Amino acid sequence: MPACTIGLDYGTNSVRALIVNTANGKEVASAVWTYAHGTEGVILSDDPNLARQHPADYLKGAETTVKRAIGGAKRSLKSFDAADVVGIGVDTTGSTPLPVDRRGLPLAFKPAFDNHPAAMAWLWKDHTAIDEAEEITDLARKMRPQYLAKCGGVYSSEWFWSKLLHCRRTAPKVFDAAYTWVECADWIPAMLTGTEAPETLAIGVCPAGHKAMYNKAWGGYPDEKFLIRLDAKLGDLRARLVEKAQTIDTPVGQLTDAWAGKLGLQAGIPVATGAFDAHLGAVGSGIRPGTLVKTIGTSTCDMMIVPPNQKLPDIPGLCGIVPGSIVPGFIGLEAGQSAVGDIFNWFVNYIAPGGKTKGSHKSLTAEAEQLRPGASGLLALDWNNGNRTVLVDPRLTGMILGQTLYTTPAEIYRALVEATAFGALTIVNRLEQYHVEVKDVINCGGIAEKNPMVMQVYADVLNRTMRVSRSSQTCALGAAVAAAVCAGQYQSIPDAQEAMTGLKKRVYEPIPENVAVYKKLYTLYKQLHDAFGTTSWKGNCHNVMKDLLAIRTEARAS
Amino acid sequence: MPACTIGLDYGTNSVRALIVNTANGKEVASAVWTYAHGTEGVILSDDPNLARQHPADYLKGAETTVKRAIGGAKRSLKSFDAADVVGIGVDTTGSTPLPVDRRGLPLAFKPAFDNHPAAMAWLWKDHTAIDEAEEITDLARKMRPQYLAKCGGVYSSEWFWSKLLHCRRTAPKVFDAAYTWVECADWIPAMLTGTEAPETLAIGVCPAGHKAMYNKAWGGYPDEKFLIRLDAKLGDLRARLVEKAQTIDTPVGQLTDAWAGKLGLQAGIPVATGAFDAHLGAVGSGIRPGTLVKTIGTSTCDMMIVPPNQKLPDIPGLCGIVPGSIVPGFIGLEAGQSAVGDIFNWFVNYIAPGGKTKGSHKSLTAEAEQLRPGASGLLALDWNNGNRTVLVDPRLTGMILGQTLYTTPAEIYRALVEATAFGALTIVNRLEQYHVEVKDVINCGGIAEKNPMVMQVYADVLNRTMRVSRSSQTCALGAAVAAAVCAGQYQSIPDAQEAMTGLKKRVYEPIPENVAVYKKLYTLYKQLHDAFGTTSWKGNCHNVMKDLLAIRTEARAS
Repeated sequence: MPACTIGLDYGTNSVRALIVNTANGKEVASAVWTYAHGTEGVILSDDPNLARQHPADYLKGAETTVKRAIGGAKRSLKSFDAADVVGIGVDTTGSTPLPVDRRGLPLAFKPAFDNHPAAMAWLWKDHTAIDEAEEITDLARKMRPQYLAKCGGVYSSEWFWSKLLHCRRTAPKVFDAAYTWVECADWIPAMLTGTEAPETLAIGVCPAGHKAMYNKAWGGYPDEKFLIRLDAKLGDLRARLVEKAQTIDTPVGQLTDAWAGKLGLQAGIPVATGAFDAHLGAVGSGIRPGTLVKTIGTSTCDMMIVPPNQKLPDIPGLCGIVPGSIVPGFIGLEAGQSAVGDIFNWFVNYIAPGGKTKGSHKSLTAEAEQLRPGASGLLALDWNNGNRTVLVDPRLTGMILGQTLYTTPAEIYRALVEATAFGALTIVNRLEQYHVEVKDVINCGGIAEKNPMVMQVYADVLNRTMRVSRSSQTCALGAAVAAAVCAGQYQSIPDAQEAMTGLKKRVYEPIPENVAVYKKLYTLYKQLHDAFGTTSWKGNCHNVMKDLLAIRTEARAS
Repeated sequence: MPACTIGLDYGTNSVRALIVNTANGKEVASAVWTYAHGTEGVILSDDPNLARQHPADYLKGAETTVKRAIGGAKRSLKSFDAADVVGIGVDTTGSTPLPVDRRGLPLAFKPAFDNHPAAMAWLWKDHTAIDEAEEITDLARKMRPQYLAKCGGVYSSEWFWSKLLHCRRTAPKVFDAAYTWVECADWIPAMLTGTEAPETLAIGVCPAGHKAMYNKAWGGYPDEKFLIRLDAKLGDLRARLVEKAQTIDTPVGQLTDAWAGKLGLQAGIPVATGAFDAHLGAVGSGIRPGTLVKTIGTSTCDMMIVPPNQKLPDIPGLCGIVPGSIVPGFIGLEAGQSAVGDIFNWFVNYIAPGGKTKGSHKSLTAEAEQLRPGASGLLALDWNNGNRTVLVDPRLTGMILGQTLYTTPAEIYRALVEATAFGALTIVNRLEQYHVEVKDVINCGGIAEKNPMVMQVYADVLNRTMRVSRSSQTCALGAAVAAAVCAGQYQSIPDAQEAMTGLKKRVYEPIPENVAVYKKLYTLYKQLHDAFGTTSWKGNCHNVMKDLLAIRTEARAS
C-alpha cells in the first residue's frame, strides 16, 4: 500500500476521519461520529442565539473515528497497514474559539466550569455577541478602518473578538479564568502533537486571518490600544495570544506517543497546521485561480484564490481577504451565505408541508423540478439566518412574496432554492465588480452531490457551468492533502491537489430559456435585496408583485 | 305559530333555507344543500381565474332546502304549519351575472350552450376579466369619472360589465345569443314569482348599484355612448337591460302556483327584492348608523350605513357607495377584503404544516393563541387574493416577512390572522378619514363565531370592542327580515331588525398591552402596504426587518 494520510474533519454535528491514498486521492476508508453533548453535538439554551460545543467531544471524536476508519481500511484492503499513514490534517468549523488555561487545557474540562456554557467552545453559529460585534465594528470604523477593509467592512458576531468580548461582559469569571483563547482549528492539531501550551502552540493563518483580524501587515492581531478601548481586560489578553502563524503546508508538530497509542498510528508522524473546513474543502475540490469553490451545506462558503501579484482592492462585504489562508502563496478570499441547506431544512423540518413524507426534501424536490422558472410567481429572500455576503448583516430575516390562494409547498421550496441561487449570484457579481473573474464554479457538499435540481437552478441563475467535486468529503480530503505535503509526499499544495483531487463527470450547463427568466427575476430579487438590506434604495416596490405576475403569465404560457 | 318568513341564502358552494319566526327572529329550522355541479358547486377550468356556477343548481337548491327546512320545522315544532310562512327573501353572491334569453331563461339551460362555461353564471370570484376591468377603468377615468367615484376609483374584474365585456371578447356566440344579462340576486326572486321575463323583471338597487355602476343620479346604468366606446354590442345591450330598481322592502312579485307546489308553501306570498349576501347579512346583524358590520368568511364584506342627510364625500378605494343598497332610506357603504378565511384555508389546505392533524385550524389556533403579539418577528400582507379595499387591485399577492430558521407554522398562522386584522384596520381608518365614524363593530360569519383568537386579535388591532351577531346565519336572517317587511309584518327594515336581530353575550375587549404592540406592527404593515401597493411610497424598507426584530426582543422579554 502506498502512503496514506488522514483528514480529520470537525463539523457542526459530527467529526469524520478519512483515510486517503496520497498517490491518487482515493478514499480508502472513513468513519463518522456524532458528538455526544447537546442536541446533535450542539449545546443550546433558551437563548436562540446560543450554540456551544464541548471540547471533550473533539478528543473522543478523534479517537473513535480514526480507530474505526483504520479498522474499515483493514477490512476493505488487505494490503493496508496503519503504518502506511504518514500524516494527519485537521479542519474544523470556525470561528469556534475556546478558553484555555496556562497549559492550554480547555476550561470546560475543569470541575469549576463544568457545564458552564461560556467555558465551552463557542460554535461558529453562536450569535450571542451581536451587540459586541456592532461595538467592534463601530470602534474599528473610527480607529482602525484597515482592520475592517479585509473583512468586508463589518465585524461579525460569529467571530473571535465578538465572542471573547461577550464572554468578558456576560461571564466575567470564565473570562478571568482563561489564560488565553484558542480556535478549535488550532487546538486540535496542538493537542494531537502535545503543543497545546501557549509557548509551543502554532496557529493557522486561516482562522486568525479570517476571524481574528490577524494580518502580518499590521503586526498580527489588533493592537493593544484598540483592544483596550473595547475592554481593559481584552487589552491585557493581547500579550497572551499566540502569534506564531503558519500555512497548511507546515506541520505544527508530531503525533505524540500517547495519541499514537490511542489512535493506533505511528508516533512522530506530522500533523498539519489546522484550517477551517471550507478552506480545506476548497483545497480538496481543486481550487485554483479563476475557480470559485462553493461548499454548499447548511450554509455556504464561497472561496477564491488570487495570485499574490494580482492587485487586489478591498472588496466590501467579503468575509475575508487573507494571504495564504487557502493555498499557501495565494491570497485567499472567503465569502458565504449564512443559510442555504438550513433554509430548505427549516421548510422541511419546521413547516413540514403535508406531513413528513409529502414534505420531505425528496418529494418536494421531485415536484419542484417539474416547475418552470417564474411559473409560481414567487420570490424569496434567503435571509432566514441573516446575510453574510455581501450585506454582512445578521439582523436580516427571510421573506417570501407572491403567494396566492393556490401556492403549493413545492413552489415555495423551489422559490427558496432560487433565493439561495440569487444570493450566490450576488456574491459572484460583487467579486467580478472588483476584477476577480469567476471563470469556473466547482460545487461540493451534500446538496451539490445529491440534488441535481439545485445544481441546475444554480447553473441557470449564475449562467455558468456548475461542476461538482469528485469527492464527497472535500474538507477531509483537503486536510489529507495538507497532511501529504507536510509528510513530504509533495512539494506544494497545488502539486498534491493535482494528484489527489478531481471532478465528477456530470456537469450542469445553463439552459438559455431559464437563464432569460432568471435574469428578470434576479432584477426583482436585487430590488428587494437593496430595499430591505441597504439604506441606499430610494424607490418604492410597487412594481415587484406586478412584474412577478407578468413573468408568471409568460412562464405558464410558454 | 306566529308568522314565519324564509330566507334563502345562495353562497359560493351551497344554498341554505332558514325559517324564521318574525316575532322574535328565532330560527325555527334550516337546511343546506351543496350545489351539484363542479367542485363543491364551482365550475373550474385550467384557467385559475375562471369560476362559474350552473343555474340549475339555483332551482334545485330552492326546492331541496325549503322542503327540507319545512320538514325540519314540523319535526321540531308541532305547532308549525307551512301556511305560517308569509314571505320569502333571497340573498346571493355577487356580482354573479348570467346571460338569459328573451324570456329570461338562462342560456345554460339551452342544449346549444350546455356545458359552455360562458353560458353559466359568472361567479363573483371569477377573475377572467382582469384586462376588461382595466379597460373599463381607463375609459371611465377619461370619460365618466363620476362612475368610478362611487366604486372606489377602480372598476373590478369581479363585476358585471367586466364579465360581460370578457364574454363578448372571448365567447361572442354566447354573447350574441343572450338577450340580456341578469344578476343571480335578481334572477332567483324573479324565477320564484314568474317575473323573469325582462318586461316584468324588477332588479335590486344593491346588485345594480354596487356592481353595475347603476345610479339614479345619472340615469341608471352607464350611458350608451360610454358602453359603445367599450364595444358596439355592449352599447346595443344597454336598451335591453332592465332598469326597474327596488329596495329590499319591496316585493318583486308573488310566489307562483308552480313554485308553491314544489316548495310546499302557499301560493301568492310575497318574494322580496334580492340583494347580495353581505348586504342582507348586515341587515341580519342589526346594522345601524355608526356600526360597522364585518362578515368574515373566505373573504370579508365590511358594511356601514349613513343617514341620507349626512354629507358624504366620495371615498377612494371603497367598493361602493349606493343609496338604499343595505337599509332603504340610508346610503349603503361597502368595503371588503378579498381574502381572509381563504388565506387561513390556503395555509391549512395547501401548505398543511406538519400534516392534516397538526396543521388543522384547531391545532394551529390553539398554539397561535399562546403567542404574544410581536414575539414571532413575523409580518404578513393579506393579499393572496389581491386587495379589494382600499387599494382595489387584484394584481397584488401575499407576503410573509421575518422568518428565521426556527419560525413555526403557528407563528405563521398567527401572522396571517394579524395581517387580515391590519387589512381590516386600514379600511376602518379610511372610513374615519372621510368622516364616517366607526363607533362599534359587529362581526358575523363562521370565523367570528368559532375562533375567539381571531376576534381577540381584531379587538387588539382595531382597538375597538368586537361584538358578534347572535345569529349564525345573518345573511339568511337578513333575507327573512326583508321578507317580513314585504309581508307587512313590520313597517320598515329598522323596525323588523329591532325585533328579529341581536348580539351574542360574549364580547372581545382590546387588551392595552397588545394594542400597544400592534400599533407598532401596524406602522410597519402600513409601510409595506404603501411600498408594495401604491406608487406613492418613496423610501426604502431597510427598517422593516430591524424594527420587527426589536419588537420581537421586547415581546419575548415582557
